[in-house]
Amino acid sequence: MRNDQREVNQLRNINITTNYISHPEGSVLIEMGNTKVICNASIEDRVPPFMRGQGKGWITAEYAMLPRATAQRNIRESSKGKVSGRTMEIQRLIGRALRSVVDLDQIGERTVWIDCDVIQADGGTRTASITGAFVAMSLAFAKLVEAKTLKKTPIQDYLAAISVGVLTNGTEILDLNYEEDSEAAVDMNIVMTGEGEFVEIQGTGEEATFTPNQLQNMLKLGEEGIQQLVKIQKELLADKLLID
Amino acid sequence: MRNDQREVNQLRNINITTNYISHPEGSVLIEMGNTKVICNASIEDRVPPFMRGQGKGWITAEYAMLPRATAQRNIRESSKGKVSGRTMEIQRLIGRALRSVVDLDQIGERTVWIDCDVIQADGGTRTASITGAFVAMSLAFAKLVEAKTLKKTPIQDYLAAISVGVLTNGTEILDLNYEEDSEAAVDMNIVMTGEGEFVEIQGTGEEATFTPNQLQNMLKLGEEGIQQLVKIQKELLADKLLID
Amino acid sequence: MRNDQREVNQLRNINITTNYISHPEGSVLIEMGNTKVICNASIEDRVPPFMRGQGKGWITAEYAMLPRATAQRNIRESSKGKVSGRTMEIQRLIGRALRSVVDLDQIGERTVWIDCDVIQADGGTRTASITGAFVAMSLAFAKLVEAKTLKKTPIQDYLAAISVGVLTNGTEILDLNYEEDSEAAVDMNIVMTGEGEFVEIQGTGEEATFTPNQLQNMLKLGEEGIQQLVKIQKELLADKLLID
Amino acid sequence: MRNDQREVNQLRNINITTNYISHPEGSVLIEMGNTKVICNASIEDRVPPFMRGQGKGWITAEYAMLPRATAQRNIRESSKGKVSGRTMEIQRLIGRALRSVVDLDQIGERTVWIDCDVIQADGGTRTASITGAFVAMSLAFAKLVEAKTLKKTPIQDYLAAISVGVLTNGTEILDLNYEEDSEAAVDMNIVMTGEGEFVEIQGTGEEATFTPNQLQNMLKLGEEGIQQLVKIQKELLADKLLID
Amino acid sequence: MRNDQREVNQLRNINITTNYISHPEGSVLIEMGNTKVICNASIEDRVPPFMRGQGKGWITAEYAMLPRATAQRNIRESSKGKVSGRTMEIQRLIGRALRSVVDLDQIGERTVWIDCDVIQADGGTRTASITGAFVAMSLAFAKLVEAKTLKKTPIQDYLAAISVGVLTNGTEILDLNYEEDSEAAVDMNIVMTGEGEFVEIQGTGEEATFTPNQLQNMLKLGEEGIQQLVKIQKELLADKLLID
Amino acid sequence: MRNDQREVNQLRNINITTNYISHPEGSVLIEMGNTKVICNASIEDRVPPFMRGQGKGWITAEYAMLPRATAQRNIRESSKGKVSGRTMEIQRLIGRALRSVVDLDQIGERTVWIDCDVIQADGGTRTASITGAFVAMSLAFAKLVEAKTLKKTPIQDYLAAISVGVLTNGTEILDLNYEEDSEAAVDMNIVMTGEGEFVEIQGTGEEATFTPNQLQNMLKLGEEGIQQLVKIQKELLADKLLID
Repeated sequence: MRNDQREVNQLRNINITTNYISHPEGSVLIEMGNTKVICNASIEDRVPPFMRGQGKGWITAEYAMLPRATAQRNIRESSKGKVSGRTMEIQRLIGRALRSVVDLDQIGERTVWIDCDVIQADGGTRTASITGAFVAMSLAFAKLVEAKTLKKTPIQDYLAAISVGVLTNGTEILDLNYEEDSEAAVDMNIVMTGEGEFVEIQGTGEEATFTPNQLQNMLKLGEEGIQQLVKIQKELLADKLLID
Repeated sequence: MRNDQREVNQLRNINITTNYISHPEGSVLIEMGNTKVICNASIEDRVPPFMRGQGKGWITAEYAMLPRATAQRNIRESSKGKVSGRTMEIQRLIGRALRSVVDLDQIGERTVWIDCDVIQADGGTRTASITGAFVAMSLAFAKLVEAKTLKKTPIQDYLAAISVGVLTNGTEILDLNYEEDSEAAVDMNIVMTGEGEFVEIQGTGEEATFTPNQLQNMLKLGEEGIQQLVKIQKELLADKLLID
Repeated sequence: MRNDQREVNQLRNINITTNYISHPEGSVLIEMGNTKVICNASIEDRVPPFMRGQGKGWITAEYAMLPRATAQRNIRESSKGKVSGRTMEIQRLIGRALRSVVDLDQIGERTVWIDCDVIQADGGTRTASITGAFVAMSLAFAKLVEAKTLKKTPIQDYLAAISVGVLTNGTEILDLNYEEDSEAAVDMNIVMTGEGEFVEIQGTGEEATFTPNQLQNMLKLGEEGIQQLVKIQKELLADKLLID
Repeated sequence: MRNDQREVNQLRNINITTNYISHPEGSVLIEMGNTKVICNASIEDRVPPFMRGQGKGWITAEYAMLPRATAQRNIRESSKGKVSGRTMEIQRLIGRALRSVVDLDQIGERTVWIDCDVIQADGGTRTASITGAFVAMSLAFAKLVEAKTLKKTPIQDYLAAISVGVLTNGTEILDLNYEEDSEAAVDMNIVMTGEGEFVEIQGTGEEATFTPNQLQNMLKLGEEGIQQLVKIQKELLADKLLID
Repeated sequence: MRNDQREVNQLRNINITTNYISHPEGSVLIEMGNTKVICNASIEDRVPPFMRGQGKGWITAEYAMLPRATAQRNIRESSKGKVSGRTMEIQRLIGRALRSVVDLDQIGERTVWIDCDVIQADGGTRTASITGAFVAMSLAFAKLVEAKTLKKTPIQDYLAAISVGVLTNGTEILDLNYEEDSEAAVDMNIVMTGEGEFVEIQGTGEEATFTPNQLQNMLKLGEEGIQQLVKIQKELLADKLLID
Repeated sequence: MRNDQREVNQLRNINITTNYISHPEGSVLIEMGNTKVICNASIEDRVPPFMRGQGKGWITAEYAMLPRATAQRNIRESSKGKVSGRTMEIQRLIGRALRSVVDLDQIGERTVWIDCDVIQADGGTRTASITGAFVAMSLAFAKLVEAKTLKKTPIQDYLAAISVGVLTNGTEILDLNYEEDSEAAVDMNIVMTGEGEFVEIQGTGEEATFTPNQLQNMLKLGEEGIQQLVKIQKELLADKLLID
């Protein structure tokens, strides 16, 4: 039995509030258990210099935590004057993941800025960010379609992410909370599409290793979890996201 | 008549949600109209180097906006690698204001970190931050008192802040929203205690000036607004803050 | 009696040396008691990016102290790699103040750079900077008028600044020196025009508060002090600044 | 047939020169085809602040490229004043990978600094860095054992890394060179131990996805490649690394 | 004939005002023609970390220019967030030069901070800084001797610096002003002691070269110039600096 | 006798490997004793902003050390976020030196980037960098001549650099290794052309001075050393560098 009474293959309670902040083109608050992330999607009518003149768009992501999103207060990265390696890894991951399900040619020379701001953290903030950001981005594109700025959504498939891991006792589990994550021997983040294809897998044994068999078990757990997340996304987006 | 149908001396709707985030010692979400700020207070059991060995405490504040708190997306200060002059002015103001109503000797060698994170902005974010941060800090001290870490709250008086201004047509108004603030000839922020003493007044005519008479009218409007804010704080904190 | 034998409403000795440095378009050394600030005004024939194409000018200020302007040596901000919050507040204040008495449309797409460098500090450096910078800027504009680059000065009114405060014994005083400033319960900076209108008031009770009555007394002291400063400016600038 | 005439499961030529630089405790030049990386391991007799007093050691890695390691000259990160997200990801990966096969308790309060400097790049620099750094670190520990500073090597297993990928035509290949990497739809880096356990897998479909079947094929290719690399390491280290 | 009517071996007018700023232990304003530098010497009762526990002192220098010390306004290095290569070269030069004539063992664990701030520049600012800083430092040590903190001055010899150069027409000249410096083919800075020993020579042909014969002529000019500067220093310091 | 059995006027063994790295237009590894520097020359088809539109080229240099080029590991400048004063001095020196023997008009609006990366240090890294960079740059220009992008090499003369010094026992020596450099009273770097003209001399007595006679002896030693270096360069470049 897990520390919060979940089954090994059970997700935490999920709640996604759409249109959470009024200014962005797309905005959601995603809650996975006690992890809460505001995901905003902004559309800018230009692309970064390295992409100009190609007629295609770009999607980029930024990720941050409020100082007291965590049990111990963290120093703001703006005060430190630089972004940590961990933050950079996460924002690169979010951006790559979202780009994999969007036809960048269809959005023209626009940039989609994804801002994931963790206001309360209890493990799985990067995967919650991806799952929530997909919804925020979908809403932003839907707004462009409604405004007839785009003919149809450039999104090709649903996208969600989840963590899996191996506890030190060898049990594979789905959707680790902070306490589980701290104790796990192996931590893996999986990003998949609605069609069940992989977008990204990142498995890490911090001061530990994992067997091929454990890898297969984690992949299976992750796949099941992502199917549940995509189901929630489909209900939320309903008529907003008519993928051919 | 104002752009949101308020009277010249009318505050926007105010809502303060206590215990908004779970980790900090004190946490509130303050909403003043469409301005929404998360105010967290964290207690750290040490003081900055310049204050060590004096047996007294310190209160310091940080302020930030989410990139899409505003109509146009702002670049994160962590990406720019430095904190803007505006941000520094605001966080210095918040820290000074809160220190003015706390007996720093009573809190011992502890630092109170105040984090004000604007998640949605519509004018008056610095004054909303002070008003909300006072509540978050009060809750944090109350927690120390309950835990018998402190004998009684070190807070000496209530504290709130509000903006006043002069429109280009010469009308003095209370609690400016973003549109009013953009058009105002004069902008003044007033911080006062529950007893009606001034803590800070900052009045600025950006490319404009104001007469002694206008100053007096603004001071009067601000005083009335602050009395209403303090009344709300008193109801919220009720038994938490028994000031002698 | 004050620590330097002045009356409560008495300014320190003031000396303004014009054309102090040879390169700038306008340059003064202002001495207020032992506070000495070099104020240089430079005219650049372009405006910052955010103002281009509007046909109007901009005035911006920078403020710094030599490391040994003070009793204890300060670390240079260039060595620290960043400008402190205090410096930013002051340079934003100086810029705003000067812009309030200049018709920016009349100067065309030019930037006036104001550099205030404190070579010796004894309190009141920001107000001395404003009072001196006004003279330096006036001289710079006069040079443009002489060169027939401008038809007439774009300056609309005189401008000076002074500090007032409340000692811990409750006495209100004018033009605080460093020792007084360190001991004062309340510190207020007032910027006014020659016509007696306010441009900026910033009153702060650091770990203290002040009553409405004390506020009125400080405002009165400040007003008298500024009239004396403007009188000195008028004598210095004489025929240089013929305001309609 | 691949662009350099290799089979899909064929590694490039590998050459590891030991004791390449004279100062470090362990130093190798690893060449994998045209990719050349200097890997130095330095032993410092203290640990970073967050690990002090625990009696165990730490391993940390830094990675850089000479500006002309690549076809186009890159700006030095020291000139830019900050380390890129890509560099941080890589150095965090190298550090984690090496820590997974070392018993940190056995090395006492020492830090092993791993420096991987790419002097010529042709794809696979991060995996070559791990494979080479393992050898450099092994030599450094062997030197401590020889000097009787350590009783035996703290290394628990061999460690190597390789890239695998999927070309846009769907072929899975081993050990991508730069041209292949640029064209690949999927790129995966695998770090494994001599015993065949996974330490890290990072698979990314940049603007693409991959099927579960492709994942399995890539894992198999990677496993075979790593066995060959470990064989080379074993020959090089021979009597230096007697793992129980 | 030179552009300011001087002979080739003629120094500009020199004026050194002692005790220019009130706070520093030693302070001078040195004027060489139109070049004006404030040189302050501060004594701090500790040494930098790398020198602690050795019982000896350290001398370090910082150099800066006011933005309008020059014909074109320069951006402040504090605004740029970093110190330029030129500034670093100069402050390293000043520090080295001063250390060469001081017995660091005699000053105990103290740091002498030399601040050279150019308020008006017309060539030769680094050599004027050295010549002026020597006087400021001497006054600071004299103050320690008067206060009986030091038994005697730790200064071993006088020290001054001057520039020499070769004009494009081949003429060697002493003490170049800005216009001459801009046009010179070769620029050399010479630092010498009162006893006529070299401390530093830095000769540079920017996009030019110089013959051994030109080198000898420049050395001779420099030697004569420095003797005159030392004579002025001796008169100023008179009884303050009794070198054995 | 010196610590490595050399005569006072004897250079260390010199080895220059051309075409060391494959990507740059010119690349050498220069070894002077145990000092090893990779010198790469890159040609970029544009000049920095301050030189645009003048029809002439620019040569700029960057210098760095691997962290373990030295006996003690150095912190990377990219990690520190800024380039040290020492590094800046060296790269400015290398750039100036190379520009002195190239006709910048002949290379058109191109920038030559010189990268000198010390992979192993044993004294004299800056002079080895200049000597090696000259060869790398010559090879890069030769490549442009072969490709008929340039009609002929813009190089006007050979260029090499060497260190000389005075040991504390008063002996003048040529080409100091690290141990000698650490102990020397005086350190001088000399850059000369193949024709025997000076480009740069930088002589420094760190906490010491040197007599005019010692200066002359050092100049003579340096001149002889440079003639030997130029001889080696001539053999290497043979038909590549036909200077008129």
